[in-house]
Amino acid sequence: MGQTRRDWLRSSLGIGGLLVAPSTLLSAKEIADYNPRPLESVVRLSSNENPYGPSKKVQESIIKAFGHACRYPYEYSDALAEKLAKIHGVSPESIIITGGSTEGLKITGLTFAHSGGEIIAGQPTFLAMMDYAKGWDATINWVPVGEDKGYDLNEIERRISSKTKLVFLCNPNNPTGTLLPADALTDFCNSVSDRTIVFSDEAYYDFIEEDHYPSMDALVRQGKNVIVSKTFSKVYGLAGTRIGYLIAPPHLAQQIRKNVVAMSNVLAIAAAEASLEDRDFYQFSLEQNRKQKQRIYDLLDHLQLDYVRSSTNFIFFHSKRDIKELGPEMLAKGVRIGRPFPPFYDWCRISTGTAEEVDLFIKGMLEVYNG
Amino acid sequence: MGQTRRDWLRSSLGIGGLLVAPSTLLSAKEIADYNPRPLESVVRLSSNENPYGPSKKVQESIIKAFGHACRYPYEYSDALAEKLAKIHGVSPESIIITGGSTEGLKITGLTFAHSGGEIIAGQPTFLAMMDYAKGWDATINWVPVGEDKGYDLNEIERRISSKTKLVFLCNPNNPTGTLLPADALTDFCNSVSDRTIVFSDEAYYDFIEEDHYPSMDALVRQGKNVIVSKTFSKVYGLAGTRIGYLIAPPHLAQQIRKNVVAMSNVLAIAAAEASLEDRDFYQFSLEQNRKQKQRIYDLLDHLQLDYVRSSTNFIFFHSKRDIKELGPEMLAKGVRIGRPFPPFYDWCRISTGTAEEVDLFIKGMLEVYNG
Repeated sequence: MGQTRRDWLRSSLGIGGLLVAPSTLLSAKEIADYNPRPLESVVRLSSNENPYGPSKKVQESIIKAFGHACRYPYEYSDALAEKLAKIHGVSPESIIITGGSTEGLKITGLTFAHSGGEIIAGQPTFLAMMDYAKGWDATINWVPVGEDKGYDLNEIERRISSKTKLVFLCNPNNPTGTLLPADALTDFCNSVSDRTIVFSDEAYYDFIEEDHYPSMDALVRQGKNVIVSKTFSKVYGLAGTRIGYLIAPPHLAQQIRKNVVAMSNVLAIAAAEASLEDRDFYQFSLEQNRKQKQRIYDLLDHLQLDYVRSSTNFIFFHSKRDIKELGPEMLAKGVRIGRPFPPFYDWCRISTGTAEEVDLFIKGMLEVYNG
Repeated sequence: MGQTRRDWLRSSLGIGGLLVAPSTLLSAKEIADYNPRPLESVVRLSSNENPYGPSKKVQESIIKAFGHACRYPYEYSDALAEKLAKIHGVSPESIIITGGSTEGLKITGLTFAHSGGEIIAGQPTFLAMMDYAKGWDATINWVPVGEDKGYDLNEIERRISSKTKLVFLCNPNNPTGTLLPADALTDFCNSVSDRTIVFSDEAYYDFIEEDHYPSMDALVRQGKNVIVSKTFSKVYGLAGTRIGYLIAPPHLAQQIRKNVVAMSNVLAIAAAEASLEDRDFYQFSLEQNRKQKQRIYDLLDHLQLDYVRSSTNFIFFHSKRDIKELGPEMLAKGVRIGRPFPPFYDWCRISTGTAEEVDLFIKGMLEVYNG
């Protein structure tokens, strides 16, 4: 390493600290609009949120919906479902609006795996469905990820039996950030959906950088036993508003819909509708994510810590320290990092944040690792 | 009747059409702030909403929360739970924040009555809990309301058996508007909670005009098997934002909490916190409700239609017409009235609305009933 730590830190912070969006996309004022957040006393790089959201246009749309905030959301939800149905080329009955995709995950697990049904899932992965279903006596058949931290589709398929009610895939996967090869995924879903339901959690789909990577909504359109979940919590920066949706063929949607507990709310629905129109903010968010991810890669390279190249808005890296120790150490530096993801206790999930938030992460990491 | 229909209509609309709040409470500007709603093409007097909400102060609080709308709501929800715990004199573990009280009702039914458990409920009443629990194989033991349309507590108590998992009370009751005598309710809850869980849905509690009417949260404080649900959808005018909560003794809260599916959202939590502070709007809403309810009573007296005196923001009246016919007739006049509430198919539930909305209802009713 030719650079001293101080040099590296300075150059890293110097570049990353500036919020430079492609000038063709946004004016300086618009960029300021996208970053109204003062630096918090503890920055949250722990939950894969998009700290630039909601965009000004979305905020304006929420304000315009205030006159409807006294009304129950059913009609508003139906109107959004129709828009989403058009986007995905399905009928409105295939769309189920939920309180974040979390509600979709939980009620799908409840619907199909309660009372002793089996869910096959990679490990580690996003746990909302499996944790909830376990509370309703589902059995989880955990399939460890491979050496590359990606799903082992062959092993998942091999384990399918008459007890299996559903295969859960989160792709790109949380917390590993891995993306399945497009052909392998499509082949798997096509073949496996003849035997059981395949659930494809596409929360991080927008962050995929590969061109023309397919959404599994294509298989829903073909009426296969495939369910897709989407969320407005990630690239759209609306995690706090709680809105997501399922896309499912009518025969499955019908079974899930009657188990909806809360669905979404009028303000989140207005926000979601505006988000779908606000392509500048969408592009801005993707661009910021790429930049901050690169800065974190550079840091990890500098610290010689292994990491998985990520198709998401977070990076899973080999911290070489017990995450239960690193967590408090980084918190003392003002940064909340990801929770433990068994069995990888010496790996850490770090979310991208604003440039300033990543500055703090870099500074804290250098202090912790270089003492 | 000394008045002609035209005279009656004119005097009724002439008085009620003005939005006069007690001058000690609010300035003209504030009143205008509370009624930004343009008259809709169809006014909704069908869902017991408060059309004056959310208040300006609440709207400002939502706007201030925009910077947090990208964050998951857990910490915000915990902070609100602490405030609510103080209000109700319970520990924070006794508060469960939910996506409207509907989520609380559904998951409580699911938790205690799934797989063949019995819920005893009056008929008619608010159905969210029972409809959801039926989907999970609960049995509902329906106890018809009495001649006065109020709950028959003696019969409910008589039906309790070893199969009974929960007694559901909505008090004041939806759709009848009836209120149980305070002593009878307290005695019932005290005695019955030794044998099974009593659930007290207090969505309309704020509209009770009787002084010192007790909330059943008092029995939760004593650790009895009593669960109370509250909502910000009614007097606070926040139905569209989806926020409510359960108050339950820790041993019951623990069982319910793990079945929460969606809980609430950051903007609704900000709205709820501001609502609790905004006593002027609260008083204004109660005052408007009393006024519009009186105007509807006057109309029904004029039309010689029986009704139940209501402790809520709606009135259940003997329409003497099949509600399935009256609904479309009133819709043609621009007013959506309540849905059918079996077995009272010739009764109608009408919500109070703004003065202008009630004007339309009065006009429509006079046309329908006097031809």
